[in-house]
Amino acid sequence: MTRPRLQVVFAMAPDALRRIFPDPRRARIAEIADVRGVVTEFESDAARTALAEADVLITGWGSPFIDLDVLRAAPRLTAILHSGGTIKPYVSDAVLARVDVSTAAAANAVPVAEYTAAMIVLANKKILPIAARYRRLQEEFDVEGAFGGIGNFDKRIGIVGASKIGRIVIELLRAYDLEVVVHDPFLSASDAADLGVQAVELDELLATSDVVSVHAPSLEETRNLIDARRIGLMPHGTTLVNTARGELVDQSALTERVVAGELCAILDVTTPWILERDHPLYRHENVILTPHIAGSVGTELHRLADVVAAELGRLAAGAPLAHPIAVDRMAITA
Amino acid sequence: MTRPRLQVVFAMAPDALRRIFPDPRRARIAEIADVRGVVTEFESDAARTALAEADVLITGWGSPFIDLDVLRAAPRLTAILHSGGTIKPYVSDAVLARVDVSTAAAANAVPVAEYTAAMIVLANKKILPIAARYRRLQEEFDVEGAFGGIGNFDKRIGIVGASKIGRIVIELLRAYDLEVVVHDPFLSASDAADLGVQAVELDELLATSDVVSVHAPSLEETRNLIDARRIGLMPHGTTLVNTARGELVDQSALTERVVAGELCAILDVTTPWILERDHPLYRHENVILTPHIAGSVGTELHRLADVVAAELGRLAAGAPLAHPIAVDRMAITA
Repeated sequence: MTRPRLQVVFAMAPDALRRIFPDPRRARIAEIADVRGVVTEFESDAARTALAEADVLITGWGSPFIDLDVLRAAPRLTAILHSGGTIKPYVSDAVLARVDVSTAAAANAVPVAEYTAAMIVLANKKILPIAARYRRLQEEFDVEGAFGGIGNFDKRIGIVGASKIGRIVIELLRAYDLEVVVHDPFLSASDAADLGVQAVELDELLATSDVVSVHAPSLEETRNLIDARRIGLMPHGTTLVNTARGELVDQSALTERVVAGELCAILDVTTPWILERDHPLYRHENVILTPHIAGSVGTELHRLADVVAAELGRLAAGAPLAHPIAVDRMAITA
Repeated sequence: MTRPRLQVVFAMAPDALRRIFPDPRRARIAEIADVRGVVTEFESDAARTALAEADVLITGWGSPFIDLDVLRAAPRLTAILHSGGTIKPYVSDAVLARVDVSTAAAANAVPVAEYTAAMIVLANKKILPIAARYRRLQEEFDVEGAFGGIGNFDKRIGIVGASKIGRIVIELLRAYDLEVVVHDPFLSASDAADLGVQAVELDELLATSDVVSVHAPSLEETRNLIDARRIGLMPHGTTLVNTARGELVDQSALTERVVAGELCAILDVTTPWILERDHPLYRHENVILTPHIAGSVGTELHRLADVVAAELGRLAAGAPLAHPIAVDRMAITA
């Protein structure tokens, strides 16, 4: 018996659709299933018509919110394939309990981890501060004298949060001669051993690591996790990397120590999102600031489409989803 | 029968000795063998006395040259353990043919490859040009509009030279979703397949890669290998990484295309070694210039000492060296 072809509706912002599913990727979806529509809301007659036929919703950034009312308008719906990371803003808990939901969070974690691992390698050796100083001096200088203890050898990296991203960072760092320690309140010593790292308390991590990288979820409990006291624990010459959320770090305390020449920082996120003009972090040679680009951008968005296409292929074949949402872990993930 | 303890003489610049063999490392050598002296030349009576007893010479940057005359003064000498990469400046061919020589070239290749792999990941996403522009604008901007096709996905990396360094870069890049192609006149298609990469002609590599990284040896035949015509083959928006030697690349042609906004560059080496003041490469946002720091510096020098200690341990145990010089490959290596 051949299965009937799945009926699919895209529900996301037009910009997200264009960037994540450019034509070869859109065509791949259409090979696997019938695309019944592209909607940006669930209220219009056209949207209701599409919903009425949908077996699968493909969502993404800017998706309209899916609650039980939407579910009632989509009686055939069995799965939501989310092309982004965080599903929480788009689907109600009641819907999560009734429909299979898959996310591209694992794929979305990859570029953040890749950014982080590359920056950790550069940070151990102070390569970007050295480049900034060389650009300014335009002459030879004693790099070892100017930046003590540089090098990617005999160094300790502290990972705050054994999240999806944190775990990929750990995996990527395995290729280097670096010691990795991790703090995560939900990580047992034996889980840490499985990851090939040592679990330590957060204060110890900050006090003993050469580079600290923050990969904790942004929750009420993690706001200001790296507070002024903890920033104060970081030894002279060490580096803080933050690709998670600005709110996890006491930015004033960090700025003070950076400006004093005591710490380096590599920040893809700040508070606010785009720093106010003339903030000292913009100009300091020991800081690299990027405007929230560590996550999927450009071609990396196509990886998300490939995850969705693979999940859709599994549904079409009657196979289980590879990246289902674990509803019981929702409270401790971003 | 217990072997007599090996008699060792250090022969290198005092600065190299201090940086590569700081006290815990120096002590490790003394655990394995008797250190009979530290010399910076081979002419003085003290040096001749030390040489007369030496089974092993430990050499490094700034070592005095070892020719047959030195060998005659060291009748017990069976091995030279070089704590640097290139041995050619320090040992004559006649000596190479008579004494076992080991180098730390493999260990010395590691940091260069690590610098390169990290920079390739950043280059695919234009992370450092984006950081430079963000620093200048101090406001949000459309990164995908400003820098087309960014991302570490669906990209081709071209490695010029399957040298020790080139091979470690290839190894490190395996963890990423990137296609790697290699050009090396001495690399067969089956060797390339063993490395998991495709061998291509140099012109094709330049014309089709998103990032090109140069790891060819600096020889008479490779001078200006990436000449003006080949620089001209690189597509708009691609990046050249050079951690090898400035002389391998036509710097004027590269500068012209960088200044025109057509290419990005990440250069740890230039011609001359330290660029003249006000050279346009210092200031361009699409360029990262570092003052020849990709190789072993700081703690990475201790990795070289560890290689020497391990080789000395093998000699003491009567085991073969792990990193012997392959005399027949000398003509095609740096």
